[in-house]
Amino acid sequence: MNGRFVHATDIEREQLDWGGLGWISRPPATGARQLTVLDVSLEPGHGHDFHTHPEQEEVIVVQAGEIEQWLEGEKTVLGPGEAVFIGMGTVHASFNTGDETARLTVALGPCAGEGGYELVDVSGEEPWRSLRSS
Amino acid sequence: MNGRFVHATDIEREQLDWGGLGWISRPPATGARQLTVLDVSLEPGHGHDFHTHPEQEEVIVVQAGEIEQWLEGEKTVLGPGEAVFIGMGTVHASFNTGDETARLTVALGPCAGEGGYELVDVSGEEPWRSLRSS
Repeated sequence: MNGRFVHATDIEREQLDWGGLGWISRPPATGARQLTVLDVSLEPGHGHDFHTHPEQEEVIVVQAGEIEQWLEGEKTVLGPGEAVFIGMGTVHASFNTGDETARLTVALGPCAGEGGYELVDVSGEEPWRSLRSS
Repeated sequence: MNGRFVHATDIEREQLDWGGLGWISRPPATGARQLTVLDVSLEPGHGHDFHTHPEQEEVIVVQAGEIEQWLEGEKTVLGPGEAVFIGMGTVHASFNTGDETARLTVALGPCAGEGGYELVDVSGEEPWRSLRSS
C-alpha cells in the first residue's frame, strides 16, 4: 500500500525563530515524492522573510488569523479561507501583522531535496531588504 | 510575476452529492502546474466513496470534524490536525461518520488534466463496493 495515515503523534514539530512547523507529509515521513505539506504557525509580529523555492510551487492557505502576504513587490492581507499561489522561483514573504497566532496550511510540490523542502533566503538583498520599510 | 493572491471571492465553489468543494489553486485559476488545492466539506453521513487518482499524490488534512479514512482495505478515524498521504493510484475514500460538518484541506500534485484533478471511481467494483458493510 502506497499511503500513510498521519495521526497527531506522527507529526514532527520544529520551532524556528519565525514560527512553528509541523511536517505532515514529506519524503522521510510518508514516502511522498510530489507533495510536501506543513502546518505553520506565525506569532504576532513575526513572519517568514523574503525567500524563494527555486524548484517548487507553493500554496499557503490561511486557517486562522491574518497575514500580510507578499508576492515580489505586491502585498495583500489574507484572512481565514484565503490563500496565495506562489510559482517556482517567485520571491515571497508572510508576516503576521495581526494580534493573534496565524495558522497556515502550506503545500509545496514537487518534493525537493531529501527533506522535501528547499529555499533560498533573499531577505538580506535589495530590493527585498528595504521593501517593507520603504 | 508568477503567483496569485486568492481572496475569498476568487474561490470557485461547487456542490456535489457528497459535499462541497472550493477550488483554491488549479491551472485555470492560478496557472499552477504542480499543485491543485481545495477546501472540501463533508456533511454528516456523507463521504467521497472509493476512488483513485492514477497520476497524482494526495494529502488530506482535517481542519474540523472527524472522518473515517480508508487506504485500500485499512481504515482509521482522523480528527483536526490529522491527515493522510495517498500515493499515486492508491484506492481511498473518506466518510463523515461524526455529527458535525467535516472541513478538509486537500492538496494533489502534480496537476492533472485541464482542471488539475482527475479520478477513477471504483466504488461500484469489488472489493470496494462491499468493504464498509463486511
